[in-house]
Amino acid sequence: MRILLINPNTSRAMTAKIAEAARGVAGPDVVIDAVCPATGAAAIESHTDEIAAAAAVVELVAADRDGSHPADAYVIACFGDPGLDAARELVEVPVVGIAEAAMHLAAVSGRHFGVVTTLSRTLGRAHDLVARYGMERACVSLAATGIPVLDLEDTGSEAVSLIERYGAEAAAGGADVIVLGCAGMADLCTELTARLGVPVVDGVAAAVGMASGMVRMGLGTSKRDEYARPPRAFVAATPSPQVTDVGIFA
Amino acid sequence: MRILLINPNTSRAMTAKIAEAARGVAGPDVVIDAVCPATGAAAIESHTDEIAAAAAVVELVAADRDGSHPADAYVIACFGDPGLDAARELVEVPVVGIAEAAMHLAAVSGRHFGVVTTLSRTLGRAHDLVARYGMERACVSLAATGIPVLDLEDTGSEAVSLIERYGAEAAAGGADVIVLGCAGMADLCTELTARLGVPVVDGVAAAVGMASGMVRMGLGTSKRDEYARPPRAFVAATPSPQVTDVGIFA
Amino acid sequence: MRILLINPNTSRAMTAKIAEAARGVAGPDVVIDAVCPATGAAAIESHTDEIAAAAAVVELVAADRDGSHPADAYVIACFGDPGLDAARELVEVPVVGIAEAAMHLAAVSGRHFGVVTTLSRTLGRAHDLVARYGMERACVSLAATGIPVLDLEDTGSEAVSLIERYGAEAAAGGADVIVLGCAGMADLCTELTARLGVPVVDGVAAAVGMASGMVRMGLGTSKRDEYARPPRAFVAATPSPQVTDVGIFA
Amino acid sequence: MRILLINPNTSRAMTAKIAEAARGVAGPDVVIDAVCPATGAAAIESHTDEIAAAAAVVELVAADRDGSHPADAYVIACFGDPGLDAARELVEVPVVGIAEAAMHLAAVSGRHFGVVTTLSRTLGRAHDLVARYGMERACVSLAATGIPVLDLEDTGSEAVSLIERYGAEAAAGGADVIVLGCAGMADLCTELTARLGVPVVDGVAAAVGMASGMVRMGLGTSKRDEYARPPRAFVAATPSPQVTDVGIFA
Amino acid sequence: MRILLINPNTSRAMTAKIAEAARGVAGPDVVIDAVCPATGAAAIESHTDEIAAAAAVVELVAADRDGSHPADAYVIACFGDPGLDAARELVEVPVVGIAEAAMHLAAVSGRHFGVVTTLSRTLGRAHDLVARYGMERACVSLAATGIPVLDLEDTGSEAVSLIERYGAEAAAGGADVIVLGCAGMADLCTELTARLGVPVVDGVAAAVGMASGMVRMGLGTSKRDEYARPPRAFVAATPSPQVTDVGIFA
Amino acid sequence: MRILLINPNTSRAMTAKIAEAARGVAGPDVVIDAVCPATGAAAIESHTDEIAAAAAVVELVAADRDGSHPADAYVIACFGDPGLDAARELVEVPVVGIAEAAMHLAAVSGRHFGVVTTLSRTLGRAHDLVARYGMERACVSLAATGIPVLDLEDTGSEAVSLIERYGAEAAAGGADVIVLGCAGMADLCTELTARLGVPVVDGVAAAVGMASGMVRMGLGTSKRDEYARPPRAFVAATPSPQVTDVGIFA
Repeated sequence: MRILLINPNTSRAMTAKIAEAARGVAGPDVVIDAVCPATGAAAIESHTDEIAAAAAVVELVAADRDGSHPADAYVIACFGDPGLDAARELVEVPVVGIAEAAMHLAAVSGRHFGVVTTLSRTLGRAHDLVARYGMERACVSLAATGIPVLDLEDTGSEAVSLIERYGAEAAAGGADVIVLGCAGMADLCTELTARLGVPVVDGVAAAVGMASGMVRMGLGTSKRDEYARPPRAFVAATPSPQVTDVGIFA
Repeated sequence: MRILLINPNTSRAMTAKIAEAARGVAGPDVVIDAVCPATGAAAIESHTDEIAAAAAVVELVAADRDGSHPADAYVIACFGDPGLDAARELVEVPVVGIAEAAMHLAAVSGRHFGVVTTLSRTLGRAHDLVARYGMERACVSLAATGIPVLDLEDTGSEAVSLIERYGAEAAAGGADVIVLGCAGMADLCTELTARLGVPVVDGVAAAVGMASGMVRMGLGTSKRDEYARPPRAFVAATPSPQVTDVGIFA
Repeated sequence: MRILLINPNTSRAMTAKIAEAARGVAGPDVVIDAVCPATGAAAIESHTDEIAAAAAVVELVAADRDGSHPADAYVIACFGDPGLDAARELVEVPVVGIAEAAMHLAAVSGRHFGVVTTLSRTLGRAHDLVARYGMERACVSLAATGIPVLDLEDTGSEAVSLIERYGAEAAAGGADVIVLGCAGMADLCTELTARLGVPVVDGVAAAVGMASGMVRMGLGTSKRDEYARPPRAFVAATPSPQVTDVGIFA
Repeated sequence: MRILLINPNTSRAMTAKIAEAARGVAGPDVVIDAVCPATGAAAIESHTDEIAAAAAVVELVAADRDGSHPADAYVIACFGDPGLDAARELVEVPVVGIAEAAMHLAAVSGRHFGVVTTLSRTLGRAHDLVARYGMERACVSLAATGIPVLDLEDTGSEAVSLIERYGAEAAAGGADVIVLGCAGMADLCTELTARLGVPVVDGVAAAVGMASGMVRMGLGTSKRDEYARPPRAFVAATPSPQVTDVGIFA
Repeated sequence: MRILLINPNTSRAMTAKIAEAARGVAGPDVVIDAVCPATGAAAIESHTDEIAAAAAVVELVAADRDGSHPADAYVIACFGDPGLDAARELVEVPVVGIAEAAMHLAAVSGRHFGVVTTLSRTLGRAHDLVARYGMERACVSLAATGIPVLDLEDTGSEAVSLIERYGAEAAAGGADVIVLGCAGMADLCTELTARLGVPVVDGVAAAVGMASGMVRMGLGTSKRDEYARPPRAFVAATPSPQVTDVGIFA
Repeated sequence: MRILLINPNTSRAMTAKIAEAARGVAGPDVVIDAVCPATGAAAIESHTDEIAAAAAVVELVAADRDGSHPADAYVIACFGDPGLDAARELVEVPVVGIAEAAMHLAAVSGRHFGVVTTLSRTLGRAHDLVARYGMERACVSLAATGIPVLDLEDTGSEAVSLIERYGAEAAAGGADVIVLGCAGMADLCTELTARLGVPVVDGVAAAVGMASGMVRMGLGTSKRDEYARPPRAFVAATPSPQVTDVGIFA
């Protein structure tokens, strides 16, 4: 079984880190590959970045489908789950976002969970996902550490300590489980579990677990209606100069 | 006051039609311009199209901001409200999606409304928007006519009759108001109101009304945190061949 | 286009102030008139006042319909939206409450808003309206300043400062936008926007914007079923003495 | 213990019928009195009527408080629960609406209930109450028979049969319990229970049961904040002529 | 009318105390009996205890049905409402849990209530019940005092003071009414009402009030489908040794 | 890794069938064992049965913990997820119910799912679980086939055809995915997937997939507060005769 991790930002270092984390928790029958786009957003920290990320996911899934050994399942390794619905249109196999996977497993691990993420400006997207996945009752807190995504690459003790502090606050406020709100935190999960004394969920691991379970039981993406093959392939919008010239009606 | 309508699909004919509809209901102090992307999705009928649309919105808003007479407000003229959050990051003036505008005004026009839209595969996105805008109680039905977006361009009586039939069913089922679920239906609103005997809301008109009201009262987009200027500009992901070559880690 | 503002309390000074605020933000094609009842509640600060207010709204709308130049739209200028449903029964044109208008526009101006209002005893009604309008997710705080409605008439700096303080607290707690929870605060909106640094929404201006947009697009109140003409006109209940004498069954 | 039933419409016959039904189910320690207003709405079948009803409730409760033997609890005998919040401001004893009482007891009698009421135009108010009382999951259907309230006075078999038909439909659709949506149906409860084979709840009986239980355990209305004594007594708005003359600002 | 209180823990002293509290608020036509299991959980403070409690409720209701004078209604006197659904399957008369009764009456006594209970580990169950009974909007706080159930037996001033402190905090935070979250607090209700200045609801009294009202109006448990007589009687699972021996498939 | 399936009914044949189904989808690193109680409910088809099932789960988990090779994770193989919370109190490893697992994976497989189960009287419990797991938006239908649990043992074509019919209806009504609402249907999953053309989820397989993923990533049950070790072990209530004799207070 081959699972393709899609990191929609352009950081190769982060992509490698995520892949390594995934391999550490995958079953013996699972091969993990990972890709990231050559150009696009360096980190996914805004709604604008989210669109670049979604486009990257669509491009990368489509490229993999056209390859000789398409994956048995896809994991979108960014906590905003960008491009999740679109990717599901393109394939019949499972596509799992790390935010949804983390929340679904956290909900099985305890009654209430708290999310600890990077920048506060991304909390709006997190709110949307909590609602979309039906986690309004399960999710009791969404906290931003203020750590930019790329600062997670050099994992000095500062980032860990900050995440620990917010995680401990969440636990004190009623969270039985802590969800890490960024793929870039995948390598901190074991350390944070030990420090916090409650289960800590890394979405990358969670998604690999769910996706591989789905593959083994033959469960893929429903192709009924909404996720059926789309009427046309993705074409990026032409950059602004031409557009402005052509499109204005006065 | 200048309002820029952004049609995120590539149909110039539809863009012109939408602009005309908007001008018919704008106040005397409002100038309506409209743009569409030079390349991208021909119609927005899938999640994959939605990403192309969102990218087009971001590109077109950014281009307008860089121009000499940036708009006083933006209207995203596609019922999926693609790129709405990202566009809000880019400007301080109002950005209004036609789905949100139609739903907000429909909720003021009667207790319960029904949406009549194009293809059933887009209903999932409509569900998401209903939830996002808090319209779960107000919206009592979402119906798809099966009419592809571009078929609305030649507005023969067939499309009108089909929309009328679904609208009448929605009214019989408890909808006090009918919301048209596609910008391409903007020119049918008057005719359908007459036929159905209940208010029919075109989102383009609704968005122009809300946006111009907001401009007059000095109400723009909050720049607090989530919608503050994003950390980096939008960069389209490099198309697939390069990406695959570069990004896979095995 | 003529819009009639209905202030359901008996303060002529407040009525004049509201009308002035509305005129400042109305389009060039809009004439603003305003009325208040001759007798009734001096301010709307309790559920008991709310009933008097609702009765005043019904009486004033009915009187205007019977006049020679009935309005093209009605705005109920009290944050409890008293008599809104009943007024809709009486007319085919738009009727917009300032609480609903403020919330709908605030939801377009940012993801989360906070309401800052007068007395804490009115928060229950505000809770009801938040639920009725589907704003449970958008509205993140409801705060009472403790300022009685009529104290807003002499707008010394104290009221503004108090509202500012609660508005700043709301923003610190996650509100992207502040909604003013009383028609009597209409004239403070510009000042508060400047002080708070986030959009501040006055419901009177918001309602004028929504109502005039609806008039221009030909959108009125659905007369289907619930808001159809009522079976009988409003008749005030006879004051208590007679009633007691007549009605008790022992 | 004295419980005062307040029928907010002007029908003395209906008031007597309701009182009789209440006496049939009251405990041996309970005296039932009943009042209705001398003038006002003949039946409560619109939002306009609802305001007249609310005013009547406030007037009648206030009159009773001023009497020599004020009641130990009040029951508002109209399914829209008009004036409920205002009445609670006026007293420290329990005030129970028949809609809320019927729904609370129905929820204890089975998992899902259906409401069968009079005119379809009142369903909007019923929706509001279902939400207000937290019964969205418990209430699985709201059906209107089309029977005007006053036609229930001559209880020929036709009304019973019609209510039975809608009740049977509700039960077939998943309702374990049927709630009668009008005080004027109080005398039909036993007959309908026998015909339908599922519990049928009359709100008048339910409210008497809840109110007398509350009195015996010393539980009244919280006077904290929202329901504290209102700042001023109810004053009816002066009828329209004077108002128009005085209030318009042009 | 005979109401049987079922205390599902094994404390006879608590059972006697609860019965006494119930008798103090029952109508003159009501006889209160009370039972508890001979063996089982000493207190209901965990989900494990909850299952023992549910089994006890089923056994005790079944035993009472088989007796010569089965009760006219049953009250489950434990705040987790254990076995409520199952007990409803066994009888046609009302079965009322003290948590549901307390919440329903609290919702009639004020807009918002807070629950003050024993150990924090039971809050998860309380959350479930709040959702099950539709009280998400009405219930504004759930607080645990940390007092073990059995410590309530010797009602020294310490327990009362602790409950008072949490109740006062709840009131300060917006609760109009306090709900006592344990049957063992039944005797403290009057004292706490006096101290707190807002209504305090004891679920035992509330359940007796609701159940007796239901009996008088002839309202029982719906036997339609879900609560129809179960296909087989309760049989306790055989203790572990035999089971392990028999059941493992390797 | 050893996963213990707990079938809480007494059918050894069903237990063997479930174990076989689980083994077919488990990873190569997983050993599946299965147990059922020696006495208890023959099938779980009522709330009364549910209590017996919950007690069996607690007894069987406790017995396994006391054994020499306690499991690495537990799966409760009954669609009501009986005893789930209590089992979590007893262990630090994952405990997964098949209803929750099926719903979580179905939500990843498509936007909307429908549940097809056995007897209609069990739908109330299914409603509770849908709410508990946050699936109100994802779950669009709950249908009962009327097939008793034990009739699934002889899997003639009739049961499959009936489930297929209800599944097809659910799909026609908007379900992208079908969830099988009984552990006894585990062996029909492949056949039904082929017949229905949309993904069909068997909860046993889903739970094994989730549980094994959790074990591999070191994610267990949070022992914070609610799921901490309970204050006392489970003790079955003494059967009725003794209880009645001892416990009644008159």
